[in-house]
Amino acid sequence: MTLKDGVLDPQGRAIAGALTDLGFEGVEGARQGKVIELELADQALDAAKEQVEAMCKKLLANPVIENYRIEIS
Amino acid sequence: MTLKDGVLDPQGRAIAGALTDLGFEGVEGARQGKVIELELADQALDAAKEQVEAMCKKLLANPVIENYRIEIS
Repeated sequence: MTLKDGVLDPQGRAIAGALTDLGFEGVEGARQGKVIELELADQALDAAKEQVEAMCKKLLANPVIENYRIEIS
Repeated sequence: MTLKDGVLDPQGRAIAGALTDLGFEGVEGARQGKVIELELADQALDAAKEQVEAMCKKLLANPVIENYRIEIS
Protein backbone atom coordinates (compact mmCIF):
# COMPACT_ATOMS: atom_id res chain seq x y z
CA MET A 1 0.00 0.00 0.00
CA THR A 2 1.30 3.40 -0.86
CA LEU A 3 -0.29 6.80 -0.54
CA LYS A 4 -1.87 8.05 -3.73
CA ASP A 5 -0.05 10.72 -5.69
CA GLY A 6 -1.20 14.06 -4.40
CA VAL A 7 -1.70 12.84 -0.86
CA LEU A 8 0.84 14.54 1.35
CA ASP A 9 3.42 12.06 2.66
CA PRO A 10 5.41 13.76 5.44
CA GLN A 11 7.25 10.55 6.34
CA GLY A 12 8.43 10.16 2.77
CA ARG A 13 9.51 13.75 2.68
CA ALA A 14 11.46 13.34 5.92
CA ILE A 15 13.21 10.29 4.46
CA ALA A 16 14.21 12.15 1.30
CA GLY A 17 15.49 15.07 3.38
CA ALA A 18 17.45 12.84 5.74
CA LEU A 19 19.08 10.95 2.87
CA THR A 20 20.14 14.19 1.24
CA ASP A 21 21.47 15.49 4.57
CA LEU A 22 23.51 12.29 4.90
CA GLY A 23 25.21 13.11 1.63
CA PHE A 24 23.30 10.83 -0.74
CA GLU A 25 22.99 12.65 -4.04
CA GLY A 26 20.22 12.48 -6.59
CA VAL A 27 17.34 11.66 -4.25
CA GLU A 28 14.41 13.20 -6.09
CA GLY A 29 11.64 11.89 -3.92
CA ALA A 30 10.58 9.23 -1.44
CA ARG A 31 7.21 7.80 -0.47
CA GLN A 32 6.64 5.51 2.45
CA GLY A 33 4.03 2.78 2.35
CA LYS A 34 3.12 -0.46 4.03
CA VAL A 35 3.53 -4.07 3.10
CA ILE A 36 1.47 -6.82 4.67
CA GLU A 37 2.57 -10.43 4.24
CA LEU A 38 -0.22 -12.92 4.74
CA GLU A 39 0.07 -16.65 5.17
CA LEU A 40 -3.07 -18.26 3.83
CA ALA A 41 -4.32 -21.82 3.83
CA ASP A 42 -3.71 -23.72 0.57
CA GLN A 43 -6.17 -22.82 -2.15
CA ALA A 44 -6.37 -22.02 -5.84
CA LEU A 45 -4.42 -18.95 -6.93
CA ASP A 46 -7.52 -17.20 -8.26
CA ALA A 47 -9.43 -17.79 -5.08
CA ALA A 48 -6.54 -16.52 -2.99
CA LYS A 49 -6.29 -13.36 -5.04
CA GLU A 50 -10.01 -12.76 -4.72
CA GLN A 51 -9.85 -13.31 -0.98
CA VAL A 52 -6.96 -10.87 -0.53
CA GLU A 53 -8.75 -8.32 -2.73
CA ALA A 54 -11.75 -8.54 -0.40
CA MET A 55 -9.47 -8.18 2.64
CA CYS A 56 -7.95 -5.03 1.19
CA LYS A 57 -11.35 -3.50 0.54
CA LYS A 58 -12.80 -4.44 3.91
CA LEU A 59 -9.89 -3.85 6.24
CA LEU A 60 -6.34 -3.48 5.02
CA ALA A 61 -6.35 -0.50 2.67
CA ASN A 62 -7.95 2.92 2.78
CA PRO A 63 -9.01 3.37 -0.85
CA VAL A 64 -9.62 7.08 -0.38
CA ILE A 65 -5.92 7.81 0.07
CA GLU A 66 -4.06 4.58 -0.70
CA ASN A 67 -3.24 2.49 -3.72
CA TYR A 68 -2.61 -1.19 -3.21
CA ARG A 69 -1.10 -4.01 -5.19
CA ILE A 70 -1.47 -7.72 -4.55
CA GLU A 71 1.28 -10.25 -5.16
CA ILE A 72 0.76 -13.95 -4.61
CA SER A 73 3.63 -16.42 -4.40
CA MET B 1 11.44 -4.05 5.14
CA THR B 2 9.85 -6.68 7.29
CA LEU B 3 10.52 -7.70 10.84
CA LYS B 4 12.78 -10.72 11.15
CA ASP B 5 11.21 -14.04 12.05
CA GLY B 6 11.19 -14.32 15.79
CA VAL B 7 10.72 -10.60 16.34
CA LEU B 8 7.30 -10.03 17.86
CA ASP B 9 4.99 -8.25 15.40
CA PRO B 10 1.91 -7.08 17.33
CA GLN B 11 0.55 -5.16 14.33
CA GLY B 12 0.73 -8.26 12.17
CA ARG B 13 -0.96 -10.27 14.86
CA ALA B 14 -3.75 -7.71 15.16
CA ILE B 15 -4.28 -7.84 11.39
CA ALA B 16 -4.52 -11.62 11.38
CA GLY B 17 -6.96 -11.50 14.29
CA ALA B 18 -9.11 -8.82 12.70
CA LEU B 19 -9.29 -10.69 9.38
CA THR B 20 -10.38 -13.86 11.16
CA ASP B 21 -12.97 -11.90 13.16
CA LEU B 22 -14.32 -10.49 9.90
CA GLY B 23 -14.96 -14.03 8.72
CA PHE B 24 -11.96 -14.57 6.44
CA GLU B 25 -10.94 -18.18 6.77
CA GLY B 26 -7.52 -19.73 6.51
CA VAL B 27 -5.48 -16.76 7.70
CA GLU B 28 -2.47 -18.47 9.24
CA GLY B 29 -0.37 -15.43 9.90
CA ALA B 30 0.32 -11.82 8.98
CA ARG B 31 3.40 -9.63 9.24
CA GLN B 32 3.41 -5.93 8.64
CA GLY B 33 6.38 -4.18 7.14
CA LYS B 34 7.33 -1.00 5.35
CA VAL B 35 7.99 -0.15 1.76
CA ILE B 36 9.93 2.93 0.72
CA GLU B 37 9.79 4.07 -2.89
CA LEU B 38 12.70 6.24 -3.90
CA GLU B 39 13.04 8.34 -7.00
CA LEU B 40 16.71 8.58 -7.88
CA ALA B 41 18.58 10.55 -10.51
CA ASP B 42 19.50 8.56 -13.64
CA GLN B 43 22.48 6.30 -13.14
CA ALA B 44 23.71 2.80 -13.90
CA LEU B 45 21.63 0.01 -12.36
CA ASP B 46 24.58 -1.37 -10.37
CA ALA B 47 25.43 2.05 -8.97
CA ALA B 48 21.80 2.65 -7.99
CA LYS B 49 21.60 -0.69 -6.20
CA GLU B 50 24.82 0.04 -4.33
CA GLN B 51 23.54 3.47 -3.35
CA VAL B 52 20.24 2.11 -2.04
CA GLU B 53 22.08 -0.65 -0.16
CA ALA B 54 24.15 2.05 1.57
CA MET B 55 20.97 4.03 2.36
CA CYS B 56 19.40 0.97 3.97
CA LYS B 57 22.44 0.36 6.13
CA LYS B 58 22.86 3.98 7.16
CA LEU B 59 19.28 5.11 7.64
CA LEU B 60 16.35 3.18 6.29
CA ALA B 61 16.51 -0.25 7.90
CA ASN B 62 17.28 -1.47 11.38
CA PRO B 63 19.36 -4.59 10.65
CA VAL B 64 19.00 -5.84 14.21
CA ILE B 65 15.30 -6.55 13.80
CA GLU B 66 14.50 -6.02 10.12
CA ASN B 67 15.15 -7.77 6.85
CA TYR B 68 15.14 -5.71 3.71
CA ARG B 69 14.97 -6.34 0.00
CA ILE B 70 15.85 -3.93 -2.79
CA GLU B 71 14.02 -3.79 -6.10
CA ILE B 72 15.07 -1.45 -8.88
CA SER B 73 12.86 -0.65 -11.84
